[in-house]
Amino acid sequence: MNAFNFLTPPRGGKPRKAGITMVLDKGMGLQAARDLMEISSDYVDFIKFGWGTLPLHRRDIVMEKVEMYRSFNVEAYPGGTLFEIAYINGMVPEYLEEAGEIGFKTLEISNGTVNISNDEKCRFIEMAVDTGFNVISEVGKKDPALDSQLDPEERVELVSEDLNAGASMVLMEARESGQNIGIYDSNGNVKEDEVNYLIEKLPSDRIIWEAPQKNQQVYFILKIGPDVNLGNIPPEEITALETIRRGLRGDTLGKVNL
Amino acid sequence: MNAFNFLTPPRGGKPRKAGITMVLDKGMGLQAARDLMEISSDYVDFIKFGWGTLPLHRRDIVMEKVEMYRSFNVEAYPGGTLFEIAYINGMVPEYLEEAGEIGFKTLEISNGTVNISNDEKCRFIEMAVDTGFNVISEVGKKDPALDSQLDPEERVELVSEDLNAGASMVLMEARESGQNIGIYDSNGNVKEDEVNYLIEKLPSDRIIWEAPQKNQQVYFILKIGPDVNLGNIPPEEITALETIRRGLRGDTLGKVNL
Amino acid sequence: MNAFNFLTPPRGGKPRKAGITMVLDKGMGLQAARDLMEISSDYVDFIKFGWGTLPLHRRDIVMEKVEMYRSFNVEAYPGGTLFEIAYINGMVPEYLEEAGEIGFKTLEISNGTVNISNDEKCRFIEMAVDTGFNVISEVGKKDPALDSQLDPEERVELVSEDLNAGASMVLMEARESGQNIGIYDSNGNVKEDEVNYLIEKLPSDRIIWEAPQKNQQVYFILKIGPDVNLGNIPPEEITALETIRRGLRGDTLGKVNL
Repeated sequence: MNAFNFLTPPRGGKPRKAGITMVLDKGMGLQAARDLMEISSDYVDFIKFGWGTLPLHRRDIVMEKVEMYRSFNVEAYPGGTLFEIAYINGMVPEYLEEAGEIGFKTLEISNGTVNISNDEKCRFIEMAVDTGFNVISEVGKKDPALDSQLDPEERVELVSEDLNAGASMVLMEARESGQNIGIYDSNGNVKEDEVNYLIEKLPSDRIIWEAPQKNQQVYFILKIGPDVNLGNIPPEEITALETIRRGLRGDTLGKVNL
Repeated sequence: MNAFNFLTPPRGGKPRKAGITMVLDKGMGLQAARDLMEISSDYVDFIKFGWGTLPLHRRDIVMEKVEMYRSFNVEAYPGGTLFEIAYINGMVPEYLEEAGEIGFKTLEISNGTVNISNDEKCRFIEMAVDTGFNVISEVGKKDPALDSQLDPEERVELVSEDLNAGASMVLMEARESGQNIGIYDSNGNVKEDEVNYLIEKLPSDRIIWEAPQKNQQVYFILKIGPDVNLGNIPPEEITALETIRRGLRGDTLGKVNL
Repeated sequence: MNAFNFLTPPRGGKPRKAGITMVLDKGMGLQAARDLMEISSDYVDFIKFGWGTLPLHRRDIVMEKVEMYRSFNVEAYPGGTLFEIAYINGMVPEYLEEAGEIGFKTLEISNGTVNISNDEKCRFIEMAVDTGFNVISEVGKKDPALDSQLDPEERVELVSEDLNAGASMVLMEARESGQNIGIYDSNGNVKEDEVNYLIEKLPSDRIIWEAPQKNQQVYFILKIGPDVNLGNIPPEEITALETIRRGLRGDTLGKVNL
């Protein structure tokens, strides 16, 4: 039972279909990660080991982290950049095998940095799905100059292709910073016109909006609703984000209903 | 005994009448919080469980955190927003009861988000004091548009009313960010004219200035002195703030005397 | 063995002659620090107890931290400001003695805040070296107004003097923030002309560039190479920095070769 439990209802149990929170782990120690899960795992659905961090960590520690997260019903998965690195090394089959052996059940397939056509990306989505993985794909480029060439119509088309290829969800790229990328300007403010278009055209229950900054989280929760799917949340913001979803913080108090 | 103890005198023991530091806990795990207290609890007087975070955490963990903090002579208390949520739910009596049962001895009474007149707020301060709580009140609005309508004269008047109603200390609102709110502009810089007025009119030993950013802490320490009361300090800045108070950092070295 | 170990070679073992990473510890708890070392100590050479933080911590905890870091082949050392505080107190001999008793083998000698001529600073470098310490010196002023008076030619001369006096490495000052100081403007962007000059004139294997912000780390890694020496890295960025060195992150993928 929670403290002051009469002030807010409990959140629906996991696995969830909506209101998904994906957190970014960029190298937390095992004990720190466990300690955080003890207090706030209820509000986390996925945790991404950011970009190519995994090959820098001992395999046994990674396996323990994956298992530990799963014991809290949180699915950990490797960042899409790691898949892209396997691709340029010609080692995608080895990548899938190692991911399975480590204990991952979800993978991210992206072409944010490496030059992979979306057709080819979709074949890898199919391959990973056929191998038994849940696949989350990502749409967007990590280089702001390249990313700005993607117009909203194209983004919608790419999302659609990824979903057709078997991705269960699609991430809208915003990197760790949430600045000067995709739907955010260089100050992290939302480009409203683009977002309005995307919201209208995209199946919102299949989209995870990367929204690392608080003002971005507030924006989407007020715009789409408290059960919007949000990603790249910093670990120290897990509880804070959930208060925004529930109207337990000034920014959304009295304005939402989860 | 401290390392290099001949380079700075020890700080006066707690409970302190001046130089109070209030830290913001927005969802730290129990072990992380204890680990931080082991090394730096001497420099913390109060720790606030930010806004409405508490109902998202298990009651037993919260109770353990409160007790753990107290074992280091640090008083934990719930953010004022939680009181306001209880108010709009018509559950203030239940709120006071649960707070007591969890082990809180200090409460924050505010009207930063919910529309509560200051008269009514003062009656809740009295009620909480009568129930046996130490009350810290807060002056300021969380919405920048509303907050900017409060002129300095009014802030002084509100502080005075809260103190007369029984608050032991009054917080000057600056939220977690310290930007675009109260005495700070959108870059977090201090509005000097307003602060000069407030310093002149307010009883500084009863005021806690929320000052989450380093430049704000340096400002108040150089302006008012190293034993100014400061709040909303991020946990990872506890030691850093104390070095600023003591002249153990470049910004204040040779300029202060605590 | 690391996870996905076929995707990146291991880094050369410590003690390293190049690609040194110096991390800033501004008051981490012992358990948090150990937990972080368990997962990422391979990517840390030095850890600095920032500015004058040490006299605020219990001597036994500090000794345990120093030993713990050393057990991971990470050398901890006190920030240069602490030396400067000892200097103005006329207690440099006591400072050296206490540093040795606590277990430090490396010291930083600087004149970033206190008015110490470089001649005198060099005599302290010699004294510390004669006492048996490895000495890292620092060039730059913590006050932006004073620091901006140092032109690149002077910085080169000061580095040269420090090295001649026996410093093993020289830090290029950028403080914790990396903004409005030395080679960085008020937004943290690199002043390219100055850096080009410094790179040309300085012995890069003896320089540690303080680069707390990600864009600064990316800049130096792309400019000088992945084995550039970088300092004042926030603890939570240890793994992230190493991915930038290795081309395991979008910013440097395919552009570096460590």
